[in-house]
Amino acid sequence: MIYFTAGPSQVFPTVPQHLMAAAEQGILSISHRGSTFMDIYGEMEQGLRAVLNVPADYRIFLYSSATEIWERLSLNAIARESFHLVNGNFSAYFPEIVKKSGKKAGTHVVEEGMGFDVAGIEVPVGAEMIAAIANESSTGVMMPPEDLEALHARYPEKLLVVDAVSAVPTWQVDLRVLDGLYFSVQKGFGLPAGLGVLVLSPRLLERGLALEQSGQYCGSYHRFSSLLEKSEKRQTPATPNVLGIYLLAKVCADMLPRMDALRAAHSEKYALLCDFIRNSPELDFAVADPRHRSNTVVVAKHTLSDPKAKLKALATKGYEIGAGYGKFADTQVRISNFPATTVEDVKGLIGAW
Amino acid sequence: MIYFTAGPSQVFPTVPQHLMAAAEQGILSISHRGSTFMDIYGEMEQGLRAVLNVPADYRIFLYSSATEIWERLSLNAIARESFHLVNGNFSAYFPEIVKKSGKKAGTHVVEEGMGFDVAGIEVPVGAEMIAAIANESSTGVMMPPEDLEALHARYPEKLLVVDAVSAVPTWQVDLRVLDGLYFSVQKGFGLPAGLGVLVLSPRLLERGLALEQSGQYCGSYHRFSSLLEKSEKRQTPATPNVLGIYLLAKVCADMLPRMDALRAAHSEKYALLCDFIRNSPELDFAVADPRHRSNTVVVAKHTLSDPKAKLKALATKGYEIGAGYGKFADTQVRISNFPATTVEDVKGLIGAW
Repeated sequence: MIYFTAGPSQVFPTVPQHLMAAAEQGILSISHRGSTFMDIYGEMEQGLRAVLNVPADYRIFLYSSATEIWERLSLNAIARESFHLVNGNFSAYFPEIVKKSGKKAGTHVVEEGMGFDVAGIEVPVGAEMIAAIANESSTGVMMPPEDLEALHARYPEKLLVVDAVSAVPTWQVDLRVLDGLYFSVQKGFGLPAGLGVLVLSPRLLERGLALEQSGQYCGSYHRFSSLLEKSEKRQTPATPNVLGIYLLAKVCADMLPRMDALRAAHSEKYALLCDFIRNSPELDFAVADPRHRSNTVVVAKHTLSDPKAKLKALATKGYEIGAGYGKFADTQVRISNFPATTVEDVKGLIGAW
Repeated sequence: MIYFTAGPSQVFPTVPQHLMAAAEQGILSISHRGSTFMDIYGEMEQGLRAVLNVPADYRIFLYSSATEIWERLSLNAIARESFHLVNGNFSAYFPEIVKKSGKKAGTHVVEEGMGFDVAGIEVPVGAEMIAAIANESSTGVMMPPEDLEALHARYPEKLLVVDAVSAVPTWQVDLRVLDGLYFSVQKGFGLPAGLGVLVLSPRLLERGLALEQSGQYCGSYHRFSSLLEKSEKRQTPATPNVLGIYLLAKVCADMLPRMDALRAAHSEKYALLCDFIRNSPELDFAVADPRHRSNTVVVAKHTLSDPKAKLKALATKGYEIGAGYGKFADTQVRISNFPATTVEDVKGLIGAW
């Protein structure tokens, strides 16, 4: 089966061999306080920094999921108020988590399938942090990196964090305009689920440390100060998903020399999928504006009378794609375009349709 | 290498084959909202219930580590005050996490290497929860299950939760006397790190739901109400460590028909290690009272002039054991006795000493 689902998704082709190597080399048993682990942690951090072009003064903290990162940002990045760009299920979830922490979460909401017009966004004076989303995978809307640059230029004094869960590593932004970029590894990195990654600016880190100093509840073992102390030692505050960290290190190392080829394949796969949708009598783009169309989770509306049967038939031929999300379950399909699948895989999927 | 470390430790012998099966069967790519995952979740829960003899009205919630469970209990089990039995590093950590959440955490502290005299424990009237530890792996002190029964009998109205991280599955208590039992899977279950498990009573669950109703901050996606709703659907609130849950399901299924044999081997391995310590001119028990000696993490003090060289020599022969914890690094050694190692492994370690 080739998984074109939005995540968990197809694993990067080298994952099975790394799994076996981990078992053979005792990686499943090593201490998370020992030098072997610290070397792996170092490789992971170095690899991520290279793949994502992380500025030298930005930090990388590990969590167990992007959902956890929403909670940790609620506790460590704001004192009173945040502001969220919302255009679907996942971008709507973060402000709910902020509210659960007793803080105010303003929103700029656009209809599903729509992107954001940066010039029309008005962020309240009291908002300390703006939360954007690089790729809303429930609707297939992508935020062009230059729009984030424009948003930062309009509100340079506010923290700007971006949910890049189903966008990285092919979607790339100049991290200098962001204070936080976070994702989980089971999408574009093609890894088993169970890790969330936050890349954070010196300013965001300082904000968290200052909030902790002020006496605000910032969580315990995963407050910024604990993550800072341990990450400097190439360790984690709690016993982590060691295998997940090992696989992330290895897959970053595998991707790195091939980034140009992976990006070229990404563009070619996206073009193939767009041509297919354009030429199909039963499919059309769910996102009207080409500028806002996601190239990592391609969403098409359809006129299929029995979409479940179509998905089942594709699965029988070895291709798993996703149904539409939530209320679009019966009227849309979602096809991921992550680095783990090849041009041949996409041609195979189109041929099997 | 055979890992006799306190955790992460030797993996259960079937883990590598399950890892390979997971990769071959696409488990690394399945959706955490789909029926295949829900079946795996169901197997995991059924297996854990059988291995741990979980009462039918108790629930099982999954977290990413036992450290996370300390934080979640701080937020979901108490409004104002907890009380902790402390006899080493790990039991001392939980009250620190409670204090970080702005609540009071009383302690009953005994010296390292000592167990608790239940008759001498005085729990303050205001304490809502008593936190005990089944096995303090920093010192090798175990709490006999009957002492927990006695503690419950003295304070039946208070919630009683037990850190069983390095105790289960060979250490067993009647869960009816407890409101919570929690552990991580990289110790006695012989699994890769990255999952924490909380077994909780109806009374503890109700307490958490009532605290949430009262408006207390209980966290967001991992508050009891979210875990309850999702676990009833055999799902998790966030994308979880799917591979870890799969391995836990499989290893429980592997252990279950062999529990008697695993327990017999456990006793035989413990007897071998005790004889070895008793007869060694350079070793002695770190825990004076045999009733409080851990049979899952055996700790010995020693008169070795160069303990690091001894550990290195053992590693060269294929056996990794642990140094003493913290201030005991140079004066003690720690040898785990988890189900993943065999009687032959222990004989081999003793022969290699």
